[in-house]
Amino acid sequence: MLTLSKKAMMLPASPIRKLVPYADAAKKRGIQVYHLNIGQPDIESPVEALNAVKENHLKLVAYPNSAGNESYRKGLARYYQNIGIDVDYTDINITTGGSEALQIALTVTCDPDDEVIVLEPFYTNYNSFAIVNDVRFVPITTCIDNGFAIPSIEEFERHITPRTKGIIICNPCNPTGVLYTRDEIEKLGDIARKHNLYIYSDEVYREFCYTDEPHYSCMHIKGLENNVILCDSVSKRYSLCGVRIGAVVSRNKEVMNAVLRYSQARLCSPAYGQIAAEAALNAPESYFKAVKEEYIRRRDFLVENLRTIPGVLCPTPMGAFYAAVRLPVDDSDRFAQWLLEEFSYNGKTVMVAPMAGFYATPGKGRDEVRIAYVLKIEDLREALTCLKEALKVYPGRTQTA
Amino acid sequence: MLTLSKKAMMLPASPIRKLVPYADAAKKRGIQVYHLNIGQPDIESPVEALNAVKENHLKLVAYPNSAGNESYRKGLARYYQNIGIDVDYTDINITTGGSEALQIALTVTCDPDDEVIVLEPFYTNYNSFAIVNDVRFVPITTCIDNGFAIPSIEEFERHITPRTKGIIICNPCNPTGVLYTRDEIEKLGDIARKHNLYIYSDEVYREFCYTDEPHYSCMHIKGLENNVILCDSVSKRYSLCGVRIGAVVSRNKEVMNAVLRYSQARLCSPAYGQIAAEAALNAPESYFKAVKEEYIRRRDFLVENLRTIPGVLCPTPMGAFYAAVRLPVDDSDRFAQWLLEEFSYNGKTVMVAPMAGFYATPGKGRDEVRIAYVLKIEDLREALTCLKEALKVYPGRTQTA
Repeated sequence: MLTLSKKAMMLPASPIRKLVPYADAAKKRGIQVYHLNIGQPDIESPVEALNAVKENHLKLVAYPNSAGNESYRKGLARYYQNIGIDVDYTDINITTGGSEALQIALTVTCDPDDEVIVLEPFYTNYNSFAIVNDVRFVPITTCIDNGFAIPSIEEFERHITPRTKGIIICNPCNPTGVLYTRDEIEKLGDIARKHNLYIYSDEVYREFCYTDEPHYSCMHIKGLENNVILCDSVSKRYSLCGVRIGAVVSRNKEVMNAVLRYSQARLCSPAYGQIAAEAALNAPESYFKAVKEEYIRRRDFLVENLRTIPGVLCPTPMGAFYAAVRLPVDDSDRFAQWLLEEFSYNGKTVMVAPMAGFYATPGKGRDEVRIAYVLKIEDLREALTCLKEALKVYPGRTQTA
Repeated sequence: MLTLSKKAMMLPASPIRKLVPYADAAKKRGIQVYHLNIGQPDIESPVEALNAVKENHLKLVAYPNSAGNESYRKGLARYYQNIGIDVDYTDINITTGGSEALQIALTVTCDPDDEVIVLEPFYTNYNSFAIVNDVRFVPITTCIDNGFAIPSIEEFERHITPRTKGIIICNPCNPTGVLYTRDEIEKLGDIARKHNLYIYSDEVYREFCYTDEPHYSCMHIKGLENNVILCDSVSKRYSLCGVRIGAVVSRNKEVMNAVLRYSQARLCSPAYGQIAAEAALNAPESYFKAVKEEYIRRRDFLVENLRTIPGVLCPTPMGAFYAAVRLPVDDSDRFAQWLLEEFSYNGKTVMVAPMAGFYATPGKGRDEVRIAYVLKIEDLREALTCLKEALKVYPGRTQTA
């Protein structure tokens, strides 16, 4: 029968992408749309990376090694060693983006109906990786009112069953902007140790931490070498989203052997992307310093301005480039669509990501949106003016100042 | 529990890669190894593709569209139209290589324990895609004695059950070098029509056909628009293996919608690769003419010389750049390893791909190897001399002239 698989029918259309036709229609009507909805940074990639690709001498673009080019893996091992993560290049398998890294990590560790605990709200595409692997996500809700703090050990343990295979943690967190502290990460490690769980550690925003403390990774936890599977990516770190280069990193040799066998089946990760990613390792400290300063400026501007809007709650994000924001609206899906379909202010409007799609529990996040501060301050100013004016006239407004 | 998934434990190590350590050891002993074992062409990529990447003006490498860049999809639609495949760009979803194309096609159409018929010998990595999707492969054996001819309708029907979802066909075929005729493809179409089956048509070697007839694709079959899912790639066509660009192409709108939702979850295919692949569409006819002439020269040289070796059977391959060859040996796995471990002739030896790994049925292909004629004639000559001399002295030789 020419039917789709059950998985195919479950695969969600991205909640953000549902809005794209409305944004396109708005643009066709001549309205300028400020995109605060996606994590596509506007920061330039390091010139080292761009130039390495432009100056490549390939005459034929052959298959790189399935685990990734050895020179790149060795360079990446040094990068991790420099941030106190003690890995060898054989602990690293290059992947086609961070997406493939998590996808492979789940495939090689989870059987159908195994459970993986995930803190909600979470990056929506995790859902699709779970569906494709027949993995059951067990969400633990975190709450904007306490800044999406990591739940208590007891709360985790209430959700652990004999089928629990691991916990996904995104640190710094997309979509909340939360940066977990060393204590919180150690606590998570204790749970994983006690219950023999994997930790799938999504750290693609590692460079975007806005405290004076260095980022504390699950890979730093002592004695958890076999539990932690790091899923990494150069997409955000170097504004190289399109090169599709990520990595699975783990000191669990059995896992890495399985990751390699999976990688061999799909042959390799992109050759040009690996050239860019390897060269990006030479980006000077000043590159990150400038990027970080720019994001802190944007974050501060965003948070400060959001807080002047009556009825808006915005915990200060300490990492990544997202802010989770509670708005005085009935339904942020409806509000986001209304912004594009019916609203404009001086010929401008704004596109935000409704948060309901980031929760697994129905009904959660209905008055929240995610704002990606990936625009220059002058554009952020215009976007925030639109948002402020929109909230004055939105028919589904639920609170007054 | 920190265990691997059942899938991970089933994922095979590539039968060819098992030999790599022996090849490396041989090289360390100073022996020159001729690689006839992998489908990595030595032909240069079109300068149009290489230059487009070198001359790109990207300042930041952003996410391309999840379905692929529209300009590339439109160009690719024209490419298909030029070879009589009537598709619109919306029937095309760019993927990360042909591997991802087949992987996604299986995921969106097959439920666990669904069956897919495959002609053996087949491209070994299909096995991994089946395992990852919990799909059961049902092999129908084809035989070197009749040139791996497509089985009869009755033979297909003996293997069709209520769980049969489709048939994978690789045309021209890796590993056999068989090019199916229009009649054979139409016959396959009749079976798919009668039994409501998908045809997953792997046509990554489409440009490598050595008859005067144009390639006849499953996409050409009339009335089968909803059945056929074409899995394509630029890897072989333009010697661009490393760019990781392929495509799923189908006029089945429901399938394409599911492919898009899958594609959105993994965000996009590589940006640089798409630049190369789009520019490669401008490669002149002379590029393919030269490539084809070179492969025909190599094939003719290979077949002619193999046939001078006593006990060797080699049907003339009419497509791709592989020859399936029967050798007078007890076990081609053992022979291939012996070539690297114990044999050399004038300081040289040869690496071939044992065929057992290309069959699903245990015991099949034990006296066959796959030879990829991806080397220049002068290297092929040396390699064949090694093979000839090796067969004279190999202890497991089974036949005499």
